[in-house]
Amino acid sequence: LGAERHIRICLSPALYPLYREENSITVVVDILRASSAICAALQHGVKKIIPVADLDEALQFEGPDVIRAAERGGEVVSGFRFGNSPTSYIHNPEIAGKTLVLSTTNGTQAIAAAKGHGLICIGAFSNITSLSDWLIARTEDVMILCAGWKSRFNLEDTIFCGALAKRLVANGFQTDIDSDATLAALVLYEHSKGKLGEFLKNSSHHRRLNKLNLQEDISYCLQEDTTSVVPVLLDDALIDVLSLPVEMNR
Amino acid sequence: LGAERHIRICLSPALYPLYREENSITVVVDILRASSAICAALQHGVKKIIPVADLDEALQFEGPDVIRAAERGGEVVSGFRFGNSPTSYIHNPEIAGKTLVLSTTNGTQAIAAAKGHGLICIGAFSNITSLSDWLIARTEDVMILCAGWKSRFNLEDTIFCGALAKRLVANGFQTDIDSDATLAALVLYEHSKGKLGEFLKNSSHHRRLNKLNLQEDISYCLQEDTTSVVPVLLDDALIDVLSLPVEMNR
Repeated sequence: LGAERHIRICLSPALYPLYREENSITVVVDILRASSAICAALQHGVKKIIPVADLDEALQFEGPDVIRAAERGGEVVSGFRFGNSPTSYIHNPEIAGKTLVLSTTNGTQAIAAAKGHGLICIGAFSNITSLSDWLIARTEDVMILCAGWKSRFNLEDTIFCGALAKRLVANGFQTDIDSDATLAALVLYEHSKGKLGEFLKNSSHHRRLNKLNLQEDISYCLQEDTTSVVPVLLDDALIDVLSLPVEMNR
Repeated sequence: LGAERHIRICLSPALYPLYREENSITVVVDILRASSAICAALQHGVKKIIPVADLDEALQFEGPDVIRAAERGGEVVSGFRFGNSPTSYIHNPEIAGKTLVLSTTNGTQAIAAAKGHGLICIGAFSNITSLSDWLIARTEDVMILCAGWKSRFNLEDTIFCGALAKRLVANGFQTDIDSDATLAALVLYEHSKGKLGEFLKNSSHHRRLNKLNLQEDISYCLQEDTTSVVPVLLDDALIDVLSLPVEMNR
């Protein structure tokens, strides 16, 4: 019998210092769209992704193997080849074997907030089965950190937390006494199940992206298991941990 | 036809700087138990309440008309006459006409966070009808600020936000583009309606208070309309604005 494992949910990077715990894996979630884009890029040939919070820092990466991507306010930043549209990475031969340097409004900021407190991985509907199987097979507690919108609460990240929490709880994970965010996420997930796109039509970020005509991206980001990757931050780069030799994948 | 009025919900005092807007009334919510205690005390004879964040500051208030109350971690602080138990103020002749100096773990900290950004009032299930009628009769936007537990997200405050938001939306209030917290609160309120006590049994603060044997307090705090007060912060003291002469009540 293993030790009891806990699941915690933190609804905003601004609250992360109040929630973080030792011996936890942090799952960073930015459904629309950074974490969905990261999974898509690794699934479709990118070798590794270097998340950087700052645009200036992103511009310092150069070389034939480097592709630079940056998004602010939902749009590709001028001077960058890609943004955080997951569909732009799908079946794109240009990205094969490349290193993607990525800076986004919310996702990479959340990664920066979680750095230095244990292993960091990326969660999206597109990798939910690979991710939950990988988490269940390990031994640490799990902290799910929502990127939100500029640190504000958002619905799609919270609902993903509920979806992931449900799988972990079904596999023996416990909530601790600060369980309110988990209880709320589970209710919101159950409420929106089977009608997620419809339910999110009134959400903030959906409305923001709709203005930018990104309906195809939104649909993709809400679909489960379109990838089979588990992006993990190792030496400041996100790689698909499932692609590593088994003896390293622990 | 009046101008469009907006409702916003902020789930933690730590997020308040990201949400605050000019020309808003801030409704501070700490259901278990500060805001419920404030309403009960004003309903049952206290003349005014001076909320102070700091215990040392609370101890500086003295005099025959002063009653000092302080709670930390759910318990009355040693050396103080009262804590934040609403039932301790009900039908208690000792408090009639007195000034209550009150410091609590969460509620008075939330008031401190909101100070300097427009009118502040107190919301609880116990004054929800008086409060919403008063808010509807005014002209400002409404910001509902959850005290949470040490700035962490909590369920009972969020569900109250949903209950109040529903009444305001039914009276023409709009959500703005950062509406995700409002949408979530409405879902959580509808989910728990008619079974609030039962639903909250697994919540964090409920479990904390249960350990302290405060079941009577919890039941009281979840009951609607046991008071008819609207506590508003004027000159650093909370008074029942409905008790003021009509010409001052604007």
